[in-house]
Amino acid sequence: MRRWFLSGSCMVFALAGLSSNSHADEGMYLFNDVPRELLRDRHQFEPSEEWLKHLQLSSVRFNSGGSGSFVSSNGLVLTNHHVASDTLAKLSSKDRNLIDDGFLAKSFDEELKAPDLELNQLISIEDVTDRVNEQITEAADAEEAAKQRRAVIATIEKESLDETGLRSDVVTLFGGAKYHLYRYKKYTDVRLVWAPETAAAFFGGDADNFEYPRYNLDATLMRVYEDGEPAKLEHFLKWNDQPAKDGDLVFVSGHPGRTQRIFTVEALEYLRDERLPHVLDLLRRKEVLLQQYRLEGKEAARRGRDELFGIQNARKAYSGMLAGLQDPQTFVSKRGRQDRLLTALSKSQEHSGLADAWKEVAEVQKEKTELLDRSVSLRSELFQLALRILILSEEDRKPNEERLPGYTDSGRESLMAQLLSPAPIYDDLEMVKLADEIALLLESRGMNDSIVQEVLAGRSPKQVASELVSGTKIKDVETRKALIEGGLDAVLASKDPMIRMARVIAPEYRRIDKINEQLSEREKQAYAEITQATTVIEGTGGYPDATFTLRLAFGVVSGYEERGEQIEPTTNFAGAFTHAKEHEGQEDFDLPESWMSAKDKIDLDTQLNFVCTADIIGGNSGSPVVDRDGALVGLIFDGNIQSLTSDYLYTDVLSRAVSVSGVAIPEALRSIYQANDLADQLGN
Amino acid sequence: MRRWFLSGSCMVFALAGLSSNSHADEGMYLFNDVPRELLRDRHQFEPSEEWLKHLQLSSVRFNSGGSGSFVSSNGLVLTNHHVASDTLAKLSSKDRNLIDDGFLAKSFDEELKAPDLELNQLISIEDVTDRVNEQITEAADAEEAAKQRRAVIATIEKESLDETGLRSDVVTLFGGAKYHLYRYKKYTDVRLVWAPETAAAFFGGDADNFEYPRYNLDATLMRVYEDGEPAKLEHFLKWNDQPAKDGDLVFVSGHPGRTQRIFTVEALEYLRDERLPHVLDLLRRKEVLLQQYRLEGKEAARRGRDELFGIQNARKAYSGMLAGLQDPQTFVSKRGRQDRLLTALSKSQEHSGLADAWKEVAEVQKEKTELLDRSVSLRSELFQLALRILILSEEDRKPNEERLPGYTDSGRESLMAQLLSPAPIYDDLEMVKLADEIALLLESRGMNDSIVQEVLAGRSPKQVASELVSGTKIKDVETRKALIEGGLDAVLASKDPMIRMARVIAPEYRRIDKINEQLSEREKQAYAEITQATTVIEGTGGYPDATFTLRLAFGVVSGYEERGEQIEPTTNFAGAFTHAKEHEGQEDFDLPESWMSAKDKIDLDTQLNFVCTADIIGGNSGSPVVDRDGALVGLIFDGNIQSLTSDYLYTDVLSRAVSVSGVAIPEALRSIYQANDLADQLGN
Repeated sequence: MRRWFLSGSCMVFALAGLSSNSHADEGMYLFNDVPRELLRDRHQFEPSEEWLKHLQLSSVRFNSGGSGSFVSSNGLVLTNHHVASDTLAKLSSKDRNLIDDGFLAKSFDEELKAPDLELNQLISIEDVTDRVNEQITEAADAEEAAKQRRAVIATIEKESLDETGLRSDVVTLFGGAKYHLYRYKKYTDVRLVWAPETAAAFFGGDADNFEYPRYNLDATLMRVYEDGEPAKLEHFLKWNDQPAKDGDLVFVSGHPGRTQRIFTVEALEYLRDERLPHVLDLLRRKEVLLQQYRLEGKEAARRGRDELFGIQNARKAYSGMLAGLQDPQTFVSKRGRQDRLLTALSKSQEHSGLADAWKEVAEVQKEKTELLDRSVSLRSELFQLALRILILSEEDRKPNEERLPGYTDSGRESLMAQLLSPAPIYDDLEMVKLADEIALLLESRGMNDSIVQEVLAGRSPKQVASELVSGTKIKDVETRKALIEGGLDAVLASKDPMIRMARVIAPEYRRIDKINEQLSEREKQAYAEITQATTVIEGTGGYPDATFTLRLAFGVVSGYEERGEQIEPTTNFAGAFTHAKEHEGQEDFDLPESWMSAKDKIDLDTQLNFVCTADIIGGNSGSPVVDRDGALVGLIFDGNIQSLTSDYLYTDVLSRAVSVSGVAIPEALRSIYQANDLADQLGN
Repeated sequence: MRRWFLSGSCMVFALAGLSSNSHADEGMYLFNDVPRELLRDRHQFEPSEEWLKHLQLSSVRFNSGGSGSFVSSNGLVLTNHHVASDTLAKLSSKDRNLIDDGFLAKSFDEELKAPDLELNQLISIEDVTDRVNEQITEAADAEEAAKQRRAVIATIEKESLDETGLRSDVVTLFGGAKYHLYRYKKYTDVRLVWAPETAAAFFGGDADNFEYPRYNLDATLMRVYEDGEPAKLEHFLKWNDQPAKDGDLVFVSGHPGRTQRIFTVEALEYLRDERLPHVLDLLRRKEVLLQQYRLEGKEAARRGRDELFGIQNARKAYSGMLAGLQDPQTFVSKRGRQDRLLTALSKSQEHSGLADAWKEVAEVQKEKTELLDRSVSLRSELFQLALRILILSEEDRKPNEERLPGYTDSGRESLMAQLLSPAPIYDDLEMVKLADEIALLLESRGMNDSIVQEVLAGRSPKQVASELVSGTKIKDVETRKALIEGGLDAVLASKDPMIRMARVIAPEYRRIDKINEQLSEREKQAYAEITQATTVIEGTGGYPDATFTLRLAFGVVSGYEERGEQIEPTTNFAGAFTHAKEHEGQEDFDLPESWMSAKDKIDLDTQLNFVCTADIIGGNSGSPVVDRDGALVGLIFDGNIQSLTSDYLYTDVLSRAVSVSGVAIPEALRSIYQANDLADQLGN
């Protein structure tokens, strides 16, 4: 598993919900609502407030789409190599290939500052449900209600920011039944300390991705700085120097990106019949496009690598999700529960009206289907910068509470960091991507569409892309800064071709965005009722669907049976060398030179990876795995292929979370990477 | 360029037409209607009847989808490695990898018999237009007319077969304005003599495919046998021992697969907006599927290779075609000509009614669009065998003239050779392909579709595929033979799961096939009228759209200018080594060991590839290129990227056909492959 994050419209189908009828170790619990009874009964464990608070404050979110943890008093952050790879790519150039070669800073001085990384540490959670709902007037239609909701959320976030100085996000939980205010401390000076070679981190490549047994050192260390100095951290994880054992109880503290377990049968049918086939066509299109681009030469291969791997990862994940939905048995269980709920509701005098919520969800899915082919938001770095600069300048003319989400005062700093990132942008890659996006616009909206006509103006998609990319100046950070500072007047007066293109596209982009917001509002109201109905019929408890906010999952270290064969829960370094030998000559199965030459020095019995039953999903990548004492025993980096359906259906029979073992990291640092100093810092 | 051939529904959009308003060396002329005047005026060349007949009888068609030529009195056939690769793959196994390692028979005894290859040598052409059209009654609707046309064609073919013993095909030309009877001598005992390594034949891989300059030894030699002995040939090409020179006039005699230059603007819009985006989504889906399958290991990589490369080739070709159609300028010229024709027609009292034909074509495109997502013909070897055995047994109960095309007496032998081919079928690959096809069926027709319900019967696509492939016995040639011999009763009684699946699918398959036949009939009638109108307005002359029948093209050896740079028309062996060096470390850019170790022995100045302006298209792969004396100077293997639009629009400004140079083949045989004996046979 790689980042759950996927740029642009591919990830739009995030929605939160509630799941009950839990299976075994199912659950991604809120830190302010952990299942104490379940933990006590099932695992004889009672977490103290202190234990929870320490784990919460030791966890961090990578805003690029992943999780991590603080692991030393002097600011070290542990995450996956594949979570860091976006940063590794941005810090690389033709002559410095951190992705292939890895990196080790020998001193603080050598640590490399990430161009646009923001880490969030969750400080507090506050329930603001009543305050949000009070502002929605009874008679409001979806458009008006969405506007009111947006306004009250912007106001709450702004007040909190002004009051605390902390990043403040109102999070929608249980599909719209609850609203919580999350306050984060932000770290924006984040530096790269150590990364292994991709050959070690992503050993086995796309072939082994989502498979088990595995042998991946998918780990990277960064460090947070404050005021130019390594941050002094009060909360960080201790490091367990013993390997995980079969049957051990473990906890995962991380940021699952999105699940849709609350989804009604009709919402899942929309995923199966419309959304996922559509997304997969798009992903395969981009996969082939990037593969073709990378054939152009070594430097092109380097430039396109990170994005391609992200796309391949998403394609494999979504393929597994779709395959699960295409199994009629999935719907037998989903429909069974829905029918039971509706039957029970129909017998309730007080609550029978709630059944309409299922019809409303079904209706919304139909309207979503019509929008699938309408997108105008071209996926190119340069175009997205232009579009967001234009929208920012327009939104800035409105009062804070009327602005689009993402453009309000509370998100200002994060937005500016993205818009002014000095990360490299490659003209040749941009042209390829933009030409394909314009061709796709033509294919999806038709040649007679007025926007298509305006975009092409008699030229081919390739010509348009070439003229835009070679003509624009917004590659330059200073140009972007000047435009943003000049405000709407400057943006409207700009003759930059990419800004002009953004002006052509923006009205339709906003129109579609508004429809989506209204559909989302209708779903929120419907799922709030479904949550209410479910609570009435099945009782309380449970956890909300994932929302890329901090959650606690738990499970046991445990193997499983596959095609009649027992899969052991742990692997070791010796297995990595055997695996390489077995796949000799196959791409992505060569261990790096550093490993081959250190083979004699490595304690080959050292545990390398392990699996457990904890309930995770994309976004959990980089999450710490801790023991009963809260000490680090592992680092989540993947789920097995059987877990790909856990987006909408969890089972612990075969589904497993895959971790780098805690003991593997210091062993590798000492035996392979000559980084004893760094190893000494871990947990201290 | 690889085979134009693409299995199943991908290639359905073959249609023939007429092109006039020729550009320069445009044209794929019928051997019984060569442009003598044009050749004389433009190239001062007047082919004699003998010259033409000799070239015709020295040319062969590969029924697997490509061209070739006889090049020795003892049966040698020259074609491309990529045309032969289907056979190379079928002759390979886990322990004998002809694709990677190449092959050389040291004696007749060592020559390897292809499992299911049929070569056709065109003996005669006869115009049967009047006889066909006489059988179509005035009042017949499209369904009745199609039936009548099918019947008269089957009768003509059967009569010819009975009379001459030759394979007899009635070919539709000029989109339905003409019908010609083609008689072929068949060669079904075809043996592999020599093939280079893929690293030499497809040097530069997918990256260099459709590019120029090139350095590919894309050649293979086979031999036709009769009665177990090398065939004694009267007609074969002499071999020119001099390289092609800039400005040389050359001729290409081969089998262009399909062009659509007659297409109306509305038919091209259908290609641009519906058909090609649909086909490309499908090709990318299959490309990614096969890439994933091949990651499973070396043997899987070998098994999936040939099919993957065919798909990548088609994807690249169709991408180029679509990009051309997405350029508004393409339509400016196409629409200009159409408008001129229609305006001229509207002024003609006698012919103004013909204008309705354009409307009819437009109407047919709309109906085709509705069918795009309805296909039920699962692309798996085993399923296709089962379906065709079922249909054969059903058709056999009808009189010859009522049978579906392909199931009539005249095609019987060829059909049986395919159904009883001993070529290997791989269970694991079949399961992967079939599972994806069933998933696609579900996605395109929806879960509530009655056929989908019957196919799944509560199981997932993967489960169904697994049960079908592991349960069927039709992998076994004897089982297939017994079923065919048992006729419809045996097939209907069969409990074989794949045959049962064919019985589930067949009725809908036939229903769609019938609709397609009617649409095709309506197009034939409309394009016949358009041809008539075009002839009235623009005069006669010209050539019909390609139909995978023998054509004569011509042009001159000539470089071109690309992005301000002059591209020379020829390359040599030295260039191959330089190209390898420049792309060191990139996949597919390693020359084989045989080349590296023979580098000192090769005359590096020997010409390797060259380009000319001849008008070719997929299917021409393997065509001989001959000089004024009819001697072989080259072997067509590709078109450059600028030629990808020549499906519907020819231009000789940048579009070029790419050939292996005639002199390169004996040089390689002698210097690299130690095959002096074989080299001595060429042209003798």
